[in-house]
Amino acid sequence: MESGFEEKDFLACCGSTKFAKEMALAAPFASLEQAVAAATDIWFNKVDVSAWLQAFSAHPQIGDSAPSSQSHHQTTSAQWSKGEQSTALATATGSSLQELSEWNARYRQKFGFIFIICASGRSTDEILAELKNRYPNRPIVEFEIAAQEQMKVTELRLKKLFTSKAKVSSTSDQ
Amino acid sequence: MESGFEEKDFLACCGSTKFAKEMALAAPFASLEQAVAAATDIWFNKVDVSAWLQAFSAHPQIGDSAPSSQSHHQTTSAQWSKGEQSTALATATGSSLQELSEWNARYRQKFGFIFIICASGRSTDEILAELKNRYPNRPIVEFEIAAQEQMKVTELRLKKLFTSKAKVSSTSDQ
Repeated sequence: MESGFEEKDFLACCGSTKFAKEMALAAPFASLEQAVAAATDIWFNKVDVSAWLQAFSAHPQIGDSAPSSQSHHQTTSAQWSKGEQSTALATATGSSLQELSEWNARYRQKFGFIFIICASGRSTDEILAELKNRYPNRPIVEFEIAAQEQMKVTELRLKKLFTSKAKVSSTSDQ
Repeated sequence: MESGFEEKDFLACCGSTKFAKEMALAAPFASLEQAVAAATDIWFNKVDVSAWLQAFSAHPQIGDSAPSSQSHHQTTSAQWSKGEQSTALATATGSSLQELSEWNARYRQKFGFIFIICASGRSTDEILAELKNRYPNRPIVEFEIAAQEQMKVTELRLKKLFTSKAKVSSTSDQ
């Protein structure tokens, strides 16, 4: 059973302070599955819509490099973000990145928050197609889709958190 | 055809600056029906979720007296708000107002914005029952219901705006 996760670890998984606080209160978790179940309940049922907006604003714009950061959870989040976008970055061309940047700006202008997508394993073209596909949505519909994508990102990051903790434990057990 | 409505008039109908700006751009309207159709489209399809939160925050808490205000649209909004709550205020008892105040606080704690309801013609008991009924909702569900209630309020206020303009016109025609 894990016992060493703190609020800042959960904040690196999802940039809402309310989410991170609730997760820290719900911890420790017997398994990754239990942590994901708690995170899902907290994210969709407990935290308010301002918490969703706060979490969205913690992401770099897709296709951009991560913002420079100081604190532990921001560094972790930025590194993970870079990893999640590795397929997109490997498949990106100058013109596709330019088009993505323009659509990102248009999206942000309409919805008031950046385009959130679980980018893991997706090419730049796939991400751009999805952005164009979601752009006509009503703001409230898009808000909920973005929250669902954020939850997918959170789940991937919780997995990384548990994996890194397992490594540390097995090292210290030796 | 009306021609004299300004941004501040629309802001008294719905406290989102984006909404008011878009309405002013869409004006003049040939009829109340056309204004309501434009307002509905702007509110649900054009303005972002932050605009919804801004509009919600412009209301006094239900059962409370309106906040003191200076500017034109705030005074108008406060007077209209008092009128819309006249049934509730006439039917209120000390204990029902106390219970409403407690549930309002609980609601705000969960959702991060005040309880929005089109109070026109509703008693305090009806409003309290509706608050308790809506309280278990998921935040995103409640967010959309609150926006629908805001739209009902906006529609009533647009009607008042057109009525007051008609009175002014018929007076100046004499």
